[in-house]
Amino acid sequence: MNKQQLFEQIRLKKSFLCVGLDPVLEKLPKHLLAYENPILEFNKQIIEATADLCVAYKPNTAFFESRGVKGWETLIQTWQHFPKDVLTIADAKRGDIGNTSAMYAEAFFNEKSSGMSFDAITVAPYMGKDSVTPFLNYADKWVIMLALTSNEGSQDFQAREYDGRKLFEQVILTSTQWANSDQLMYVVGATKPQEFAQVRRLAPDHFLLVPGVGAQGGSLAAVCEYGLNDSCGLLVNAARSIIYASSGEDFAEKARAEALALQQEMEKILEEANLL
Amino acid sequence: MNKQQLFEQIRLKKSFLCVGLDPVLEKLPKHLLAYENPILEFNKQIIEATADLCVAYKPNTAFFESRGVKGWETLIQTWQHFPKDVLTIADAKRGDIGNTSAMYAEAFFNEKSSGMSFDAITVAPYMGKDSVTPFLNYADKWVIMLALTSNEGSQDFQAREYDGRKLFEQVILTSTQWANSDQLMYVVGATKPQEFAQVRRLAPDHFLLVPGVGAQGGSLAAVCEYGLNDSCGLLVNAARSIIYASSGEDFAEKARAEALALQQEMEKILEEANLL
Repeated sequence: MNKQQLFEQIRLKKSFLCVGLDPVLEKLPKHLLAYENPILEFNKQIIEATADLCVAYKPNTAFFESRGVKGWETLIQTWQHFPKDVLTIADAKRGDIGNTSAMYAEAFFNEKSSGMSFDAITVAPYMGKDSVTPFLNYADKWVIMLALTSNEGSQDFQAREYDGRKLFEQVILTSTQWANSDQLMYVVGATKPQEFAQVRRLAPDHFLLVPGVGAQGGSLAAVCEYGLNDSCGLLVNAARSIIYASSGEDFAEKARAEALALQQEMEKILEEANLL
Repeated sequence: MNKQQLFEQIRLKKSFLCVGLDPVLEKLPKHLLAYENPILEFNKQIIEATADLCVAYKPNTAFFESRGVKGWETLIQTWQHFPKDVLTIADAKRGDIGNTSAMYAEAFFNEKSSGMSFDAITVAPYMGKDSVTPFLNYADKWVIMLALTSNEGSQDFQAREYDGRKLFEQVILTSTQWANSDQLMYVVGATKPQEFAQVRRLAPDHFLLVPGVGAQGGSLAAVCEYGLNDSCGLLVNAARSIIYASSGEDFAEKARAEALALQQEMEKILEEANLL
């Protein structure tokens, strides 16, 4: 899915919601434990309940790897279950020397090799250009680079300032030279709305993947005030607040209600910005 | 395996060699393709041929993930095949917000959950403290944090200097406050021997995992000149130069010869430093 198609989906669905799939067996509704693969069943029902309200799904690979081979199988089966009209993001935060990143690209972009072909992968910038470019060799695929994350630890290195420039700003400045806004997005946490203006100055045309709304406490309105651009330019992720909205048999219905509330808020924001 | 036990193994084997397992199907000796799982057979034979010459094995997870479920199965089976007296390192370069890094820790440290329990994992520092501490909650397990890597891209951010301090120096300075040298090691590339003196000033007691000797062109002597400490303090990794020493039926024999040459060089260095 390219940038134009993504913006079309946003206008069509009146939503820039990304649903994060971070399934933990212990948190699933108890009645799902009767299924042969409870996590897969959970993911399927969440997807069916929210597919018309969101434009992207973002399974976090850690929640699948933690369950070994079975988990990896579940990740592939979940990927197979995504509808064709959503952007699929492997939230994997990978990055290694060039020949190794090429293997990670095969893992997440090459169905023939691994059984999966996501539209996008999150990548850690620490190892620099040659750790990122192997992912850019795939046409119509996206690299979503960590810039300023939503967690407390983002202050340790990302937000550290030297000579008036923070590390996450340097990451954006440098990496915009490696690919344009048709292949590159940035992760910018919703818990740092005051930084969005600066991110937009450095990357005016790029989509930003924004975690931290919901369970982590970020505000959608604050993010949009500085983050919206003329192609929307935002994918706002919510995971726990949607997928764990209820731990009962009504979990999918309650997940839909949470997603709907966010979609409606987004519709209003898109309308006010004359983007619909 | 704790630090003392690791040093004992180094003295016993007169070696601080780590063998990197980065298996690519296309590079395997052709006769192995007759096996049901050629990559597993390759790994097993490499391990059998080198186990008395090295103190650590480091499979890089990318080379397994690229093959999907089958690859993940092979990673677990390879882990099961490691002898008990070596340090096993999952070269995974993971790192995410706290609750997610806890899942990665389960994936690589909790056999009950994932089928594997490595002694150590490589971790990317970009997301800061709470992305690292979940790995430190496991007793007798190691975090090996990326500091200065061996690739060209290390110059993009890691080696960038601000007010006289480079990012990798900041990473070491900050992270030495999170754990001591009994739980924390650093990745420092052999291709940057001139930086080892500075790393040793910041982390005098820590083990350093050193990739880049062999195929990437780093020199063992130069690394040891500045990197050795009184517990050796170095694990020098070689992957391609050992595992692909021959693409014929003699690949294991030739891998052993390469490992032996490195071990003998290391023995001489350990002797000269009065560490045996």
